Amino acid sequence: MKNKRLVIALGGNALGKTPEEQLRLVGVTASTIVDLVEEGYDVVVGHGNGPQVGMVNLAFEFAAGNGGGTPAMPFPECGAMTQGYIGYHLQQAIQRELARRGLDRPCATVVTQVVVDPADEAFSHPTKPVGMFYSKDEADAIVARTGYTFVEDAGRGYRRVVPSPLPVKIVELPVVEQLVEHHNVVITVGGGGIPVMEKSDGNYEGVAAVIDKDRASARLALDLHADMLVILTAVERVSINYRKADQHDLESMTAAEARDYIAAGHFAPGSMLPKVESCLQFVEATGAPALITSLERAREALQGTTGTRIVP
Amino acid sequence: MKNKRLVIALGGNALGKTPEEQLRLVGVTASTIVDLVEEGYDVVVGHGNGPQVGMVNLAFEFAAGNGGGTPAMPFPECGAMTQGYIGYHLQQAIQRELARRGLDRPCATVVTQVVVDPADEAFSHPTKPVGMFYSKDEADAIVARTGYTFVEDAGRGYRRVVPSPLPVKIVELPVVEQLVEHHNVVITVGGGGIPVMEKSDGNYEGVAAVIDKDRASARLALDLHADMLVILTAVERVSINYRKADQHDLESMTAAEARDYIAAGHFAPGSMLPKVESCLQFVEATGAPALITSLERAREALQGTTGTRIVP
Repeated sequence: MKNKRLVIALGGNALGKTPEEQLRLVGVTASTIVDLVEEGYDVVVGHGNGPQVGMVNLAFEFAAGNGGGTPAMPFPECGAMTQGYIGYHLQQAIQRELARRGLDRPCATVVTQVVVDPADEAFSHPTKPVGMFYSKDEADAIVARTGYTFVEDAGRGYRRVVPSPLPVKIVELPVVEQLVEHHNVVITVGGGGIPVMEKSDGNYEGVAAVIDKDRASARLALDLHADMLVILTAVERVSINYRKADQHDLESMTAAEARDYIAAGHFAPGSMLPKVESCLQFVEATGAPALITSLERAREALQGTTGTRIVP
Repeated sequence: MKNKRLVIALGGNALGKTPEEQLRLVGVTASTIVDLVEEGYDVVVGHGNGPQVGMVNLAFEFAAGNGGGTPAMPFPECGAMTQGYIGYHLQQAIQRELARRGLDRPCATVVTQVVVDPADEAFSHPTKPVGMFYSKDEADAIVARTGYTFVEDAGRGYRRVVPSPLPVKIVELPVVEQLVEHHNVVITVGGGGIPVMEKSDGNYEGVAAVIDKDRASARLALDLHADMLVILTAVERVSINYRKADQHDLESMTAAEARDYIAAGHFAPGSMLPKVESCLQFVEATGAPALITSLERAREALQGTTGTRIVP
């Protein structure tokens, strides 16, 4: 039996800032995800890791720089750690909710690498701030030692920035595909995936970068031939003229309308823009719909009573 | 086609103490693992995480206690992080080696919880030291705040100890089973698994503990009906009268002989003893053989020219 497949992209912000918060918040997320399983879908979950990878990176950076006796931890390895950390809480909560509703489906997290292109223009202008704030002198010393890029961050000091390249290929896709075929709930591309580059000999090597989790989830949805890409965020619907007097919440938009709204600057870069662009990529390549809505209203949105659908 | 199944237990010490060391050392490990794939086996890899979980725990403990601004990280969550961290390096190295030899097999890491019994007597005497050294006053203050158990560690100060309970059940076993059936190389029960307890309502909850990775791998081998359990360690063969004038390296031992050697105190607790006991558990329950050898000689040991076989 082939169920309809959903790829869901979850925000890292929805998972809290401490392990205790995360453990509480995954319950809400799990309830939504299992709602969708109950609706008869095979569900694959991609998630962000912004606050979490920041935390891991910061703890290691602080400990290494202040006599903690632990080594510095490269950025891709920090991302790998967050996949274990978030995946553990998320799969445990989803397993609990599946069992509570008598649904016999395994759920597990696959540690996932995502290939990026060394020629991606993001590598020439890193934009994602990570790690600690430093004084100008401290930052200059680190740059001299490591070649990292620093930017001044709103008067709070200097902070390392890493690039945010596009996802090209999901290395562990065959494993995810097998698990989805067996109706497992699969957690993958955590934090957009551990970013790796393909070297000339075909080997992969981690690279300090952050792949946008919505774009990675769109890539995943395309590769898995998903029936829908669902991006869960803080708002129930996408709006044009957001937070203005004439704000209008959209029930749906065609790909062409979405392009027009993007051109007119309706969607904020780093916020709604990558979500709409990710949906567009999926919709235009597959002809299948995408949906943007809130975690809390996902079930109703799937049933068609809320959310914003992006259609061809 | 059903291949023979091997469950391999790898030591965490073989993975080095820093990310750079680990990245180099996984190459050696991957080469051995792919040797066994090339011999026609389906291979499932369990691994330790002693140095790695110590490092993660220490970095978070140091940063949280010294103004780093990151939260304290509970011990099971530290273990989950190491599964992502080690799994990432290991799967990348195994994927590289598989590709180099033209073997078309996916490899991935499954984030894995292992259930322990709250009535396990290990909970009444915690033995595994984790985290930082503290003065007696500091340790007393932490005990008052958290209820942790501390012991004095060889004059170097006071250190937290956690229990090392037996593995009872592997939560993500169905997922691992499916992936092995599809001939994936699977990395699982990292660090012996993330230790969880089953609560009265059937839910799982993380617990501060370390599950021995050899015992977790034996549990895994039993549950997967493996054809052999292979424990890789620093020596090529198990010895009786180890490091004495009459040291004798064993080609094989029966379960009965193993019990006699254990009774005679030939195997060091915390070192060879849990390895031999894990093999015994597997051999006695299944009638299949187990093998203890070094990482470097694993292929020859599988072919029968070295290593110590434990047989019924």
